[in-house]
Amino acid sequence: MTTDPRLTPLVQSLPRTVPFVGPEAQERDRGRPFKARLGANESVFGPSPQAVTAMQEAAQEVWKYGDSESFELRTELAAQHGIAMENIVIGAGIDGLLGSLVRLTVPQGAPVVTSDGAYPTFNYHVNGYGGVLHKVAYTADHEDPEHLVAKAKEVGARLIYLSNPDNPMGTWHDAETVQRMIEAVPEGTLLVLDEAYIEFAPDGTAPPIDPQDSRVIRMRTFSKAHGMAGARVGYAIGDAGLIAAFNLVRNHFGMSRISQAGALAAARDADWLAHVQAQVATARDRIHAIATDNGLTSLPSAASFVAVDCGADGTFAKAVLNGLLERDVFVRMPFVAPQDRCIRISAGGPEDLDLLAEALPGALADARKL
Amino acid sequence: MTTDPRLTPLVQSLPRTVPFVGPEAQERDRGRPFKARLGANESVFGPSPQAVTAMQEAAQEVWKYGDSESFELRTELAAQHGIAMENIVIGAGIDGLLGSLVRLTVPQGAPVVTSDGAYPTFNYHVNGYGGVLHKVAYTADHEDPEHLVAKAKEVGARLIYLSNPDNPMGTWHDAETVQRMIEAVPEGTLLVLDEAYIEFAPDGTAPPIDPQDSRVIRMRTFSKAHGMAGARVGYAIGDAGLIAAFNLVRNHFGMSRISQAGALAAARDADWLAHVQAQVATARDRIHAIATDNGLTSLPSAASFVAVDCGADGTFAKAVLNGLLERDVFVRMPFVAPQDRCIRISAGGPEDLDLLAEALPGALADARKL
Repeated sequence: MTTDPRLTPLVQSLPRTVPFVGPEAQERDRGRPFKARLGANESVFGPSPQAVTAMQEAAQEVWKYGDSESFELRTELAAQHGIAMENIVIGAGIDGLLGSLVRLTVPQGAPVVTSDGAYPTFNYHVNGYGGVLHKVAYTADHEDPEHLVAKAKEVGARLIYLSNPDNPMGTWHDAETVQRMIEAVPEGTLLVLDEAYIEFAPDGTAPPIDPQDSRVIRMRTFSKAHGMAGARVGYAIGDAGLIAAFNLVRNHFGMSRISQAGALAAARDADWLAHVQAQVATARDRIHAIATDNGLTSLPSAASFVAVDCGADGTFAKAVLNGLLERDVFVRMPFVAPQDRCIRISAGGPEDLDLLAEALPGALADARKL
Repeated sequence: MTTDPRLTPLVQSLPRTVPFVGPEAQERDRGRPFKARLGANESVFGPSPQAVTAMQEAAQEVWKYGDSESFELRTELAAQHGIAMENIVIGAGIDGLLGSLVRLTVPQGAPVVTSDGAYPTFNYHVNGYGGVLHKVAYTADHEDPEHLVAKAKEVGARLIYLSNPDNPMGTWHDAETVQRMIEAVPEGTLLVLDEAYIEFAPDGTAPPIDPQDSRVIRMRTFSKAHGMAGARVGYAIGDAGLIAAFNLVRNHFGMSRISQAGALAAARDADWLAHVQAQVATARDRIHAIATDNGLTSLPSAASFVAVDCGADGTFAKAVLNGLLERDVFVRMPFVAPQDRCIRISAGGPEDLDLLAEALPGALADARKL
């Protein structure tokens, strides 16, 4: 809350909290760097070498604005998804696209439905544009399509948010379940299907893309499987009318030319994607094993991270998390009970997970002493 | 205008026009590339070699999100300006920052004052958030501080926009004039002082920065003198309260990590900046000479471009511009009379300006035949 009269009444009413404190900010507070960076679901396996080369070449050309239409990238993605480029808009990561989407669709005071504990940056945008959030509990650590749809009907929601696979739990629904949800979306509501982690999920998790379907907009990103979080490239897939609406408000020359070049090369490098998928699968297995070695359970995950159940409440999990941070292992945890009994550990390389394996017993022992 | 019921009433009311069509989009329409790219006020002299190296190194690390606080870059800029980092917010170019600023300060229906023919992307954002634009005419090809302030008083404006040097005319006011304008800003109004081209202006063009002054917010960029338009890095300087407000709405992890690294290196490379300033001064002289050689006048410019007066009305200037485009020289022109008697030519290297010198006589001759 602020009372600066230069700001709009809506902005004056906003809370002074941010969804996430970045690892660099934490390192500055701590006064020393982390040794393992496993908290922000970044891909330690890195971007495609071809993407790196493309970005390095593009650096010379950075005096030019990026192509305002991201024509080549949209053409490539459209071909890969078997849709038209008019069904795709590129943005500064899913975060940026979610902001634009809320701006486009949520008038001040309008209701929006999400799960209690789902992606906080979506909530940040809804609050930021004056939407009113209605939250539905997770069911058995899954976002609950039926409850979300029922709540949307009840409140007349403009948007329903569903991430599949879910962040922060890593749980997922199969394509049939998601398709049933799409069919059940009430008139006047748009389903925001955040598929940031879809490349890590089993085949049959993503329902087929129907670019005519005006009930759903799907979000994809180069930040996760493509290892380009720092490049800020995401895209939304929807019917042509909805996608065209982004052109009414987006920052037309807002995309980095280097990021555009990198994303194009990354999109074309299927081998690297397969390599990362294999590395992530291995890392998930290792995190499951480390949890078991420490007497903990972990949740099956279709994402690039694993939620490890610390076996007690949020206070205890927070103590474990703090113990890991003290031991220079950066991880995060869910914000809301009962999911906050877990800590969320991103897939890491062997050295990262060695550090985790080394740090976790001490972190647990310390937490149990509190 | 659209009637898609998924969109807010405000969005439904927005025009389906965009401020600028990029050169790549024009090239696709034409079916062939431009030979000289002198239309978007990009720096053909390129970014600092040290910035290129920094970006190339950062490409390997792009799997990490950028620092959400842009700590190093803000620290460097604060030191250079002799202010605190709390007075600086980094954004995706001035375009992105203008969007956030309008969102922060302009409730729907609130009045905003600018010059008729000044930066259209500012107008785009004001329209996009439902503000009401009040436009003041240029006076002798200069944005007119007294008229702008008088209009702001008359309508009770939330914002006044002034670019100094001006885009698209290249004209400028000295620091004393701008400071007088700041002193005259009415209670309840904020002056947006867009200094995108300030590095090309004579000493004594920018008034001293007073980070306590709550009447003005200043916009700077790495897109122009630093030759990094494609990296999307700008910054705003203002009092700490106003700057903190950006944190209530901005996309906290929205900055490219590569762009952050490049901007930091560019900010530290004073030699390259001096080199570019000299090149731009040379290019301006050459553009003036080419205009004279063709019997045209050109406006004195404190920016990285020159407005060349084609000596008749906007229709004629448009014909000259089209003649240049046909001859593969990309330029732009002011949108509004009487400034639209000019075409706006960005500083180019010797080869670019050779192409201009070659193309202009034919373009003029063709225009005179129409």
